[in-house]
Amino acid sequence: MAFSGPAFEILAESTGSRARAGLFHTAHGPIRTPAFMPVGTNAAVRGLTPSELESLGADCVLANTYHLWLRPGEELIQRAGGLHAFMRWNGPMLTDSGGFQILSLRHFCHVEEAGATFRSHLDETERLLTPEAAMDVQAALGSDIAMALDICPPYDCGLVEVERSTQRTLRWAERSLAARHAPGQAVFGIAQGGTGLALRAEAAAALARLPFDGFAIGGLSVGERRTETWPALDASIDNLPADRPRYLMGVGAPEDLFEGIRRGVDLFDCVLPTRLGRTGVAFTSHGPLDLRRPAARLTDEPIEECCDCPTCQRFSVGYLHHLFRGGEELGMRLASLHNVRFLVRLVCNAREAILGAEFDSELLPSSLRREDEEEGAGRPRQVSAVAAT
Amino acid sequence: MAFSGPAFEILAESTGSRARAGLFHTAHGPIRTPAFMPVGTNAAVRGLTPSELESLGADCVLANTYHLWLRPGEELIQRAGGLHAFMRWNGPMLTDSGGFQILSLRHFCHVEEAGATFRSHLDETERLLTPEAAMDVQAALGSDIAMALDICPPYDCGLVEVERSTQRTLRWAERSLAARHAPGQAVFGIAQGGTGLALRAEAAAALARLPFDGFAIGGLSVGERRTETWPALDASIDNLPADRPRYLMGVGAPEDLFEGIRRGVDLFDCVLPTRLGRTGVAFTSHGPLDLRRPAARLTDEPIEECCDCPTCQRFSVGYLHHLFRGGEELGMRLASLHNVRFLVRLVCNAREAILGAEFDSELLPSSLRREDEEEGAGRPRQVSAVAAT
Repeated sequence: MAFSGPAFEILAESTGSRARAGLFHTAHGPIRTPAFMPVGTNAAVRGLTPSELESLGADCVLANTYHLWLRPGEELIQRAGGLHAFMRWNGPMLTDSGGFQILSLRHFCHVEEAGATFRSHLDETERLLTPEAAMDVQAALGSDIAMALDICPPYDCGLVEVERSTQRTLRWAERSLAARHAPGQAVFGIAQGGTGLALRAEAAAALARLPFDGFAIGGLSVGERRTETWPALDASIDNLPADRPRYLMGVGAPEDLFEGIRRGVDLFDCVLPTRLGRTGVAFTSHGPLDLRRPAARLTDEPIEECCDCPTCQRFSVGYLHHLFRGGEELGMRLASLHNVRFLVRLVCNAREAILGAEFDSELLPSSLRREDEEEGAGRPRQVSAVAAT
Repeated sequence: MAFSGPAFEILAESTGSRARAGLFHTAHGPIRTPAFMPVGTNAAVRGLTPSELESLGADCVLANTYHLWLRPGEELIQRAGGLHAFMRWNGPMLTDSGGFQILSLRHFCHVEEAGATFRSHLDETERLLTPEAAMDVQAALGSDIAMALDICPPYDCGLVEVERSTQRTLRWAERSLAARHAPGQAVFGIAQGGTGLALRAEAAAALARLPFDGFAIGGLSVGERRTETWPALDASIDNLPADRPRYLMGVGAPEDLFEGIRRGVDLFDCVLPTRLGRTGVAFTSHGPLDLRRPAARLTDEPIEECCDCPTCQRFSVGYLHHLFRGGEELGMRLASLHNVRFLVRLVCNAREAILGAEFDSELLPSSLRREDEEEGAGRPRQVSAVAAT
């Protein structure tokens, strides 16, 4: 079937929650939603090959506009046939815009209305990333989903800065859409607004008026408590169009994926599975397992008996412990494989449950719940009055 | 077919050289010789899985007695079902004895007639490795081929020390055989002797009188020029039994593998393919390629067009350059995969040529020849008078 442009197809909706299952169609095939997207900042998911990611069931991989813009430069990747050809990943790809780097590299970055001026962490040169430049770079990279450049304010900044960043992000969203020029490339806007529910709702409602192919919720999971995260997420989602995919940026803890799906999120990304994997921590249904801990030494069982990942199919915790103790790269790789598969399977199981009308919060083992989560608080509805108009 | 003990089967011999092709039968299957054996010091080949090693065509993998003795300890591996079960490699395995560590860790090691006392590089405790202990550890590890504990003297030590180490190695060889107690485990002796041809010949002839299942040539490729290596190798081989496998330890440069095969070597091991791979250097038939060099940045071609490795089948040199510039683990892994496959294929092609009576020194591209090699010098015969008796 010829690709006729990005489109979101909702296949089933949960009755007991806002969860839904669907397909987001891209030029490189559909993304089954809800989906967890592994992060390949530098056009490579740390230590893993595209074939492995495919066999783990990942539909879509992320890369980062800011990092690739600096090195190797988008011209080189375009010359190689685009990001897909360069890194040999043939499925859907999403490129983050560089907005998160305005936060993470804020001590090397100055933001004005025109854009963000970065002092490169590689060679100290100054480079201006504008909303238009971010769209240009993403068009050259040829990702399937481009993100509008946003400003992600620090969690602990004052209300004035949150408000200013949120309003500027909205103006940048309009400029991003005006600059759009890669046919077939979906463009997503990013809703900011800090943790103030009124601003969250207002920003989402304003963004919802723009013809984006999907909407991301940014500025969450940046240090705030989960009791602040979920109401802010709800305030955004309440005001975003239900017929477009919702992408909760930077969230990837198992308990958070489940909670996000329940609250209507379709897409997630996070470096957590590979970052934790490299430090010797493996996800399990009973919570994180530290493979370096002395007790792991004598364990002949895999990380999880029931896990279908290539690591659990073959290697014991005792062997993984030995690899981490010896600084062997293989350990980092095997733990990363397990962790990515764990998250992909978690969202995949949720998707199957939604499709089978069996989605239920009991899918989440109680051991995965965060301690700061208010059990039974339900989804706050108080901000849904600010509807998209 | 039931395994009836280690046995070497010679299938073909070259007429123009000493090269031969065969099978060394072990409890975990045959090793096709000549063979290149990748090194997994800590029961893991740096960054690669057993499945990958198998798909690269490696028949036998090495592990290190000294390192595994210190960590995790042979009892733990025995408890896990032996080295094969622990690291999930089901093919033949060879364990080095710890003799090379007497050289590489010589500043932490004191050698007496009883054995070598190491100050552990992990926890500073003192531990005595005797020939008997090395056999015990290897029996517990359950490798298919155990090596007798030897003393590998530094390249630049005086003649007195070479002579003393060589004589002690012979006495330790006898003690190793007397201590042998793992049924079905092959035991190889190691011929030392420095670069003096008379001592080399004498040591090999003395070792040849002992009923080892195979014979290694040690103490070469430790710093000496290749013009010294090859005569010393010949002096050893001239005095070792032709019906037993010959193993040239620690040699793995492409040009050296070829030269070794021509001179009658059956087995090789080396950390070179993974060590070079991790630093961004790839073997090619035109010599080593530095993937970090600026010219690699714009190369759309694979490392070698004709290479059947998973890296060359999929990735460009430009992408690999990008990975190394960004410190991405995937680059190290992809270069290591290529390098191991390059060496395995090199010996595999040599084997096919020997079996097809087509083995010829012209198989070696002139670009692989070392500059210090004396072209056309042929194999010196002057020491062959010291025959095994």
